[in-house]
Amino acid sequence: MKLSEVGEFGLIARFAPAFLKKLPRNVVGIGDDCAVLPWTRRERLLVTTDMLVEDSHFLRKEISPRDLGDKSLAVNLSDIASMGGRPRWAFLSLGLPAGVEVEWVDEFFRGLGRAARAAGVRLVGGDTTKSPDRVVINIAVAGMVRPSRVKYRSGARVGDVIAVTGNLGDSGGGLRVLLERRRRGKDEKYLVHAHHRPRPHLDEGVWLGARTGVRAMMDVSDGIDSDLHRIMERSKCGAVVDLDRLPISAPLRRTAARSGWDPFEVAASGGEDYCLLATVAPESFEPVAAGFERRFGRRLAAIGEVRPAREGLSYRLGGRPVSLGRRGFDHFK
Amino acid sequence: MKLSEVGEFGLIARFAPAFLKKLPRNVVGIGDDCAVLPWTRRERLLVTTDMLVEDSHFLRKEISPRDLGDKSLAVNLSDIASMGGRPRWAFLSLGLPAGVEVEWVDEFFRGLGRAARAAGVRLVGGDTTKSPDRVVINIAVAGMVRPSRVKYRSGARVGDVIAVTGNLGDSGGGLRVLLERRRRGKDEKYLVHAHHRPRPHLDEGVWLGARTGVRAMMDVSDGIDSDLHRIMERSKCGAVVDLDRLPISAPLRRTAARSGWDPFEVAASGGEDYCLLATVAPESFEPVAAGFERRFGRRLAAIGEVRPAREGLSYRLGGRPVSLGRRGFDHFK
Repeated sequence: MKLSEVGEFGLIARFAPAFLKKLPRNVVGIGDDCAVLPWTRRERLLVTTDMLVEDSHFLRKEISPRDLGDKSLAVNLSDIASMGGRPRWAFLSLGLPAGVEVEWVDEFFRGLGRAARAAGVRLVGGDTTKSPDRVVINIAVAGMVRPSRVKYRSGARVGDVIAVTGNLGDSGGGLRVLLERRRRGKDEKYLVHAHHRPRPHLDEGVWLGARTGVRAMMDVSDGIDSDLHRIMERSKCGAVVDLDRLPISAPLRRTAARSGWDPFEVAASGGEDYCLLATVAPESFEPVAAGFERRFGRRLAAIGEVRPAREGLSYRLGGRPVSLGRRGFDHFK
Repeated sequence: MKLSEVGEFGLIARFAPAFLKKLPRNVVGIGDDCAVLPWTRRERLLVTTDMLVEDSHFLRKEISPRDLGDKSLAVNLSDIASMGGRPRWAFLSLGLPAGVEVEWVDEFFRGLGRAARAAGVRLVGGDTTKSPDRVVINIAVAGMVRPSRVKYRSGARVGDVIAVTGNLGDSGGGLRVLLERRRRGKDEKYLVHAHHRPRPHLDEGVWLGARTGVRAMMDVSDGIDSDLHRIMERSKCGAVVDLDRLPISAPLRRTAARSGWDPFEVAASGGEDYCLLATVAPESFEPVAAGFERRFGRRLAAIGEVRPAREGLSYRLGGRPVSLGRRGFDHFK
């Protein structure tokens, strides 16, 4: 059987159980954005790891080495943020073809260093090694969080408000601009920039982690259509999303109109937004959203509601049920 | 400038200083087998990460997926052992081409699980993702060690006895058997097995970590010719190695004789032995070696002596200076 018949999530479901058996009670393993491990008496250690392979996750011709270094770290920082933690240390493995220019590597490290400094993270370990013809990047990040503030994918309850901390679809739109080789005006450049330079929502993650009304959290990496399924699986619930409440930027709206894209589809299934997706107890949503706006100067956008598991994931537009064009991103399909 | 002109160690020397600036006093970053980080009051956290790319680090046709899973973890466990620590948690990133069979992945996990159980390590996190055409594996391992027992590459002093915990060159011989497509009799199979199924010297590492007479330690990953240079750089010393004291297995001796290899060269520069290389204070060597033999039932083999830096690394055979054929493995050369 080929991987393409099983898919990424099928593969994880296949091997994960063997590794989850008999884990100590204070350890959370595979199935969330980070592993949660014992650390000091007052804090837990969060660890996440992500691999980026050239031509699967980035195009070396399209992204500058500096942005690539920045983004490689950012996607991991986002995983720490999504559990309410603060990132502290990073570990890099870098597989490089012999023909790569040293100056390319210098720029990669410059971007990585920039993202690390901005987040207060130190690169403390790594492995530089050879790769036959593609650049391969793996970054692991360790962070910390108080046990009472960890947010899991499994905490959602029926009736919770589903909310996101940023615009959806800009990064996915940027990828489409690249793949469709569109002429790049100001809007398209904005989208490509969003794709190449995601900003991990670190302060937002810590702030939301400290709110008891926030029940489940993860980061938007594959698109909410796919990511909500992860929360639904772990929380044993369903969800309904109002497409007309998705926060979609003006550049994405305009580019979608010019390009014949469905902006809702790009927003819901584009992926790589790296903002946060949270479910909030209904009675807490108003004060949490007001506090979020005071703290960050922008909206915590309510986009839907957690429903019973039997309802699955559904979409509404103008209050009426609609179906979304296609599913979120699965790495093997 | 191409990477091949700089080499792996040149590249590390180029970027590492920027990341070592202003590290907190209780953190040891790039430059040793593991990063050493604060953890509980009584222990330090050790973290290491290693990337294996198909066709650079393994041949998918030659190594069974089960052995590959086992070896991928073993090389990281060896890094923890080399600093005197006990491995605890593993984090896997696995980049897979869509055409890989699910059964191949099952076997990979079976091997990984076997190595993890043998070492008391739990796989608690990971990332499965797509790769265009080559399998890419990254494993990070976290372990723990008491601060007083951490051994660094930088601890060697002039006069120390240089010792290794196992045979040298079996793995390098196995790689030669594969690359030269030699007919595989019993000896050759033994060497290929050593190449595909290295055993990390975990108990040996913990035991040597607890001996105050052991001053510097690392694992033999690139071959002692290359690895001793790492100790020499960090300890600002030189070294002399007696080739006729290198522990070389009978199968390697016989295969070398049949194949026209220089057994000393294979032993000193073959790499991937994953035994431990330590320097021991001269007055402590005898009791340490005796204790090692009692504990492990085999010799801690003295192979040379730490010398002043100006002497560099030299070799002797029958007490006379000789030169070694070629240098250890550099990933970009």
